[in-house]
Amino acid sequence: MKALVFHGPGKKSWEEVASPALLADTDAIVRVEATTICGTDLHILKGDVPTVVEGRILGHEAVGTVTLVGSAVKNIETGDRVLVSCVSACGHCRYCREGSYGQCLGGGGWILGNTIDGTQAEFVRVPFADNSTYLVPDGFTDEETLMLADILPTGFEVGVLNGQVKPGDVVVVVGAGPIGLSAISAAQLYTPSLIIAVDLADSRLESAKKFGADLTINNSSQDALATVLEATGGRGADVAIEAVGIPATFELAADLVCPGGHIANVGVHGAPAALHLERLWDKNVTITTGLVDTSSTPTLLKLLASRRLRSDNFVTHHFTFDQFLEAYDTSMRAGETGAIKVAISRRPA
Amino acid sequence: MKALVFHGPGKKSWEEVASPALLADTDAIVRVEATTICGTDLHILKGDVPTVVEGRILGHEAVGTVTLVGSAVKNIETGDRVLVSCVSACGHCRYCREGSYGQCLGGGGWILGNTIDGTQAEFVRVPFADNSTYLVPDGFTDEETLMLADILPTGFEVGVLNGQVKPGDVVVVVGAGPIGLSAISAAQLYTPSLIIAVDLADSRLESAKKFGADLTINNSSQDALATVLEATGGRGADVAIEAVGIPATFELAADLVCPGGHIANVGVHGAPAALHLERLWDKNVTITTGLVDTSSTPTLLKLLASRRLRSDNFVTHHFTFDQFLEAYDTSMRAGETGAIKVAISRRPA
Amino acid sequence: MKALVFHGPGKKSWEEVASPALLADTDAIVRVEATTICGTDLHILKGDVPTVVEGRILGHEAVGTVTLVGSAVKNIETGDRVLVSCVSACGHCRYCREGSYGQCLGGGGWILGNTIDGTQAEFVRVPFADNSTYLVPDGFTDEETLMLADILPTGFEVGVLNGQVKPGDVVVVVGAGPIGLSAISAAQLYTPSLIIAVDLADSRLESAKKFGADLTINNSSQDALATVLEATGGRGADVAIEAVGIPATFELAADLVCPGGHIANVGVHGAPAALHLERLWDKNVTITTGLVDTSSTPTLLKLLASRRLRSDNFVTHHFTFDQFLEAYDTSMRAGETGAIKVAISRRPA
Amino acid sequence: MKALVFHGPGKKSWEEVASPALLADTDAIVRVEATTICGTDLHILKGDVPTVVEGRILGHEAVGTVTLVGSAVKNIETGDRVLVSCVSACGHCRYCREGSYGQCLGGGGWILGNTIDGTQAEFVRVPFADNSTYLVPDGFTDEETLMLADILPTGFEVGVLNGQVKPGDVVVVVGAGPIGLSAISAAQLYTPSLIIAVDLADSRLESAKKFGADLTINNSSQDALATVLEATGGRGADVAIEAVGIPATFELAADLVCPGGHIANVGVHGAPAALHLERLWDKNVTITTGLVDTSSTPTLLKLLASRRLRSDNFVTHHFTFDQFLEAYDTSMRAGETGAIKVAISRRPA
Repeated sequence: MKALVFHGPGKKSWEEVASPALLADTDAIVRVEATTICGTDLHILKGDVPTVVEGRILGHEAVGTVTLVGSAVKNIETGDRVLVSCVSACGHCRYCREGSYGQCLGGGGWILGNTIDGTQAEFVRVPFADNSTYLVPDGFTDEETLMLADILPTGFEVGVLNGQVKPGDVVVVVGAGPIGLSAISAAQLYTPSLIIAVDLADSRLESAKKFGADLTINNSSQDALATVLEATGGRGADVAIEAVGIPATFELAADLVCPGGHIANVGVHGAPAALHLERLWDKNVTITTGLVDTSSTPTLLKLLASRRLRSDNFVTHHFTFDQFLEAYDTSMRAGETGAIKVAISRRPA
Repeated sequence: MKALVFHGPGKKSWEEVASPALLADTDAIVRVEATTICGTDLHILKGDVPTVVEGRILGHEAVGTVTLVGSAVKNIETGDRVLVSCVSACGHCRYCREGSYGQCLGGGGWILGNTIDGTQAEFVRVPFADNSTYLVPDGFTDEETLMLADILPTGFEVGVLNGQVKPGDVVVVVGAGPIGLSAISAAQLYTPSLIIAVDLADSRLESAKKFGADLTINNSSQDALATVLEATGGRGADVAIEAVGIPATFELAADLVCPGGHIANVGVHGAPAALHLERLWDKNVTITTGLVDTSSTPTLLKLLASRRLRSDNFVTHHFTFDQFLEAYDTSMRAGETGAIKVAISRRPA
Repeated sequence: MKALVFHGPGKKSWEEVASPALLADTDAIVRVEATTICGTDLHILKGDVPTVVEGRILGHEAVGTVTLVGSAVKNIETGDRVLVSCVSACGHCRYCREGSYGQCLGGGGWILGNTIDGTQAEFVRVPFADNSTYLVPDGFTDEETLMLADILPTGFEVGVLNGQVKPGDVVVVVGAGPIGLSAISAAQLYTPSLIIAVDLADSRLESAKKFGADLTINNSSQDALATVLEATGGRGADVAIEAVGIPATFELAADLVCPGGHIANVGVHGAPAALHLERLWDKNVTITTGLVDTSSTPTLLKLLASRRLRSDNFVTHHFTFDQFLEAYDTSMRAGETGAIKVAISRRPA
Repeated sequence: MKALVFHGPGKKSWEEVASPALLADTDAIVRVEATTICGTDLHILKGDVPTVVEGRILGHEAVGTVTLVGSAVKNIETGDRVLVSCVSACGHCRYCREGSYGQCLGGGGWILGNTIDGTQAEFVRVPFADNSTYLVPDGFTDEETLMLADILPTGFEVGVLNGQVKPGDVVVVVGAGPIGLSAISAAQLYTPSLIIAVDLADSRLESAKKFGADLTINNSSQDALATVLEATGGRGADVAIEAVGIPATFELAADLVCPGGHIANVGVHGAPAALHLERLWDKNVTITTGLVDTSSTPTLLKLLASRRLRSDNFVTHHFTFDQFLEAYDTSMRAGETGAIKVAISRRPA
């Protein structure tokens, strides 16, 4: 089969590799119908993720068809159309028992396209298949469903649930890239009274408006703190969701919340941020971090199936497998191409 | 009457001042029977708290007798023996309606001995008396009750409740001064399986053991992280409570928690700490800050009255009003004197 | 002034009475601009509410203008346009401190039109004005705002919050009268995947659809349990909200929930229901009861102001004060008139 | 091997049967070292549990040694000393994913000694072994550990956690049999201010005192409601735990709680109870039911290992396997024998 293989920082190719086989009786083999590229994949290509070795097939998101299951797999069978979740769950360890699959101690967690071969391939081996795949409801395209592999559960769990968004809240999302847009989408499940998006690029702020932001702030030219205070009668936001991953945006998020507010960090960080405890120590703030658990995937699938949650507005560019390098190029130049998410499919959409 | 008056950094005296009068119909006047000195009072004397002006009577903790109530006061009357809480609550603003009295927008919050005259005096005016004083149960001394004015609700609310201590948890308390000891006491209400105290002074660690710590770590000579990991099978603590107020102790607390753990900051900070998001972003940690609300005071009084919570082990030194400067001296030299809390009373104990 | 006075079971009149005066320094006098009739008022007229004595002015919902405030009132002043909440809160008792205003022990709770004169009058005395009135946001009519005095907080707090409605849930509302419709409206703040309304009258089920029900069941002709099981793949509903107040509807609600589900009782009951513990003991169900606290009123006002919550669809009939008896007649014959809520205003709408 | 076999209502024998074999690769075979008799076993013998067919080996609690594991079992291995939980969990279904193992849809739940052969035997097959057994900490006897198979998680989860016991609460436990005593033990993990036990038998109330009840009420001679009101200043209990399983005790529990209180049903019921909604509709009460999930077993094992929870005070009578019928006889005549729990062991204790 063919797959997208990492060959060290800056190097990748779409090349012929051996097809995957079952390694454990809880594995499944899935024929990938559609996959996508995550910001984390771009980090890997920069050499920022040391757990990813040369020769690794990248990718941790897919929709596909089950072609083989191990003897211990009970929930899915050959021929099923499934969502492959970015997080695998052993189902038995203390973290899995609490639904914290991202912290799995039994061999799961984020492993696809990281410590084992991933989904940017014609076929993928999915460990712990019973807890790591989901049947796809009828009536949805591969691309729509694909957004539930990583991006929507991340925005929902790490942004909205960790941030404890409630009806009537003012929610600020710092960063209007794919993850920020996902948080904006998911926040609306709890009916905040005001959603504010902050970003440096007007094009991303335009997207934020389309995804549901009521107010946008370009903090290259506007004072984000002053604008948020003005919009909230001087109080600040109830919830600030950080969706970038650099110290400046985390610190901004912390500045924007009101006493009693929540700062939900979603961004992937490579450096420490300053935590201004001299201002925050008496402000009753709550700061959360987290890797997605995908424990919310069944809920999100119900919301998708009942047309309460849109997921058809993320994919801006459509490719087939033989255009994989072009897809990467489009993702890497998102500033120019306007890409939010790219989809790469076995067959043309 | 006589009172302890702040005269600028490093200067204070026990001197004759005018007695307080009612200023609003929701005020009460309380004759102070016993008061104490808080770490915050020492900060004020160093000049660290700019809201406190020269001429201010210090102190925000007292047990006393009501001598006068305004016309709108309904819960207490002349002659009642009351606990004066360190936080005053208007009862009407959005924060008070949620029990967040420390964030009161209606003129309350921490005001006693800060923006208005305080409790280190023969008499004190208590604003919003209905929401800021509590009847004292029979059978308890002034000194025992006094510990519920600030220190025990602070350890309980900002340490234990914010840290979400649960039965079976491993709890680390960084800092075994009065507030750390209060957190150790209060944590036991939720029956953790292991309480670990970390401090630089063996004498404070001895106190920590008496208050209920199972394991103590002197981090001037021991590796706190290695010891906590060893005691927890490599996992780290479920809850780390910071009770010092400097960057190093906050950062240590953040290092000691397991994935999914809680870091509850109780310390009063004057400088930013480094938040190592490059290590924490995917660890599902929750960090909380907070000023005490004293919303738990009725609960703590019930626990005191039913002998489920001890408060008779904090006061190490007993003074009368005419020894106020000596009491301050004993508090300021706690390292030598071994003072945890000092009590200063109208009459000898 | 004129007021609607209760003269014993079946008897009422719109008659001249003395205008109200301040009785406590925490009172306010409000000139009523619009009021409405609640199902509870009809119960009173049937003689079902023994706390209401002859001579009482009925009504516990109003929007009006403040004409006088007591000396201790701080949040509102003469000339303010306010919402008068159906529940008054002393703000100091143990229940008020927890936000459970409906259980107030300090003289509040549901008192208007019950133990003291109410809002169906040209003027009303509002006790504990600071905790029992709310400033009305600009841009909303009296009638729209009036729905936040009782019906919307009741559906939201006692139905949706007590029932713990979550995104993706299946919610059944048993009873599609005004309170059931309010629960249907409020449930949407949490984005359930399916809302089912059950009633005996097709006309009310038509209203339920307009308010947001996805599926309606007329249980005079349809098997509600079979239909709910079919719609949920055999599981039952996550949340069942009882909005009628008779044993049969409570027992139906209990039958409709899945294992782990919530039954939120909102109806006012006059007789015991059978609780089928022989079926429910091992099903992990949670049953809640409650009087509205109106603690959610600030949240609902924010949602109204941001156009996230509609309240303009409840009032079906509009009257002026001189048509008060006609308004009652229309409410009492709701089956024929199709009345959901009637509004009675000082001036024609 | 030998086992205790049910032969229809009133009939049982300790007889030779075939030894169990692995039926699925997720099974384990455990050599039983100690087991016990549950009230549910006595119900089965009365013919009250129709899912139990003739020929079934009874029992759902054990401590033993693993003798064989299926190929998919990862957490335990041959030779391990394990606790066999009364509830089995597939680990994959929607309920297991939420920790609600008692409601397992994948073939688990309460199956041992019910729909498959149980633990009152020399060997037992344990399905879903990874999620249904727990390694036993060193230093504890079989009998101490055995109390964590059913009775302690039941009292903790269904009584204390469902009842939301908090520090300072007044907790009433109606019924001081084994389950009631377990609830009394577990409640102390949350430090209530007062624990009241209600029963008809003075001998059980004596046990309740030994387990930690502060006040006991014999409601054959005392007015339970009057006594609880007197002990709580007229308010009622914060939490009432029903641990009997008949309508009268449930109704008593509902009468004893204060407004805002919790009624946690633990008893196994065979008939409906009256729910007095005419009194409760406006009282903000929460009623819960539940089958134990044993999701708390890891927590309880930590508390046992740290000596924070006693479990050595339940077993009053000790038997060996060849005395199994005598053990049943002692359990069935608990009123005379004073039996709380009996232990039946391979070897004499």
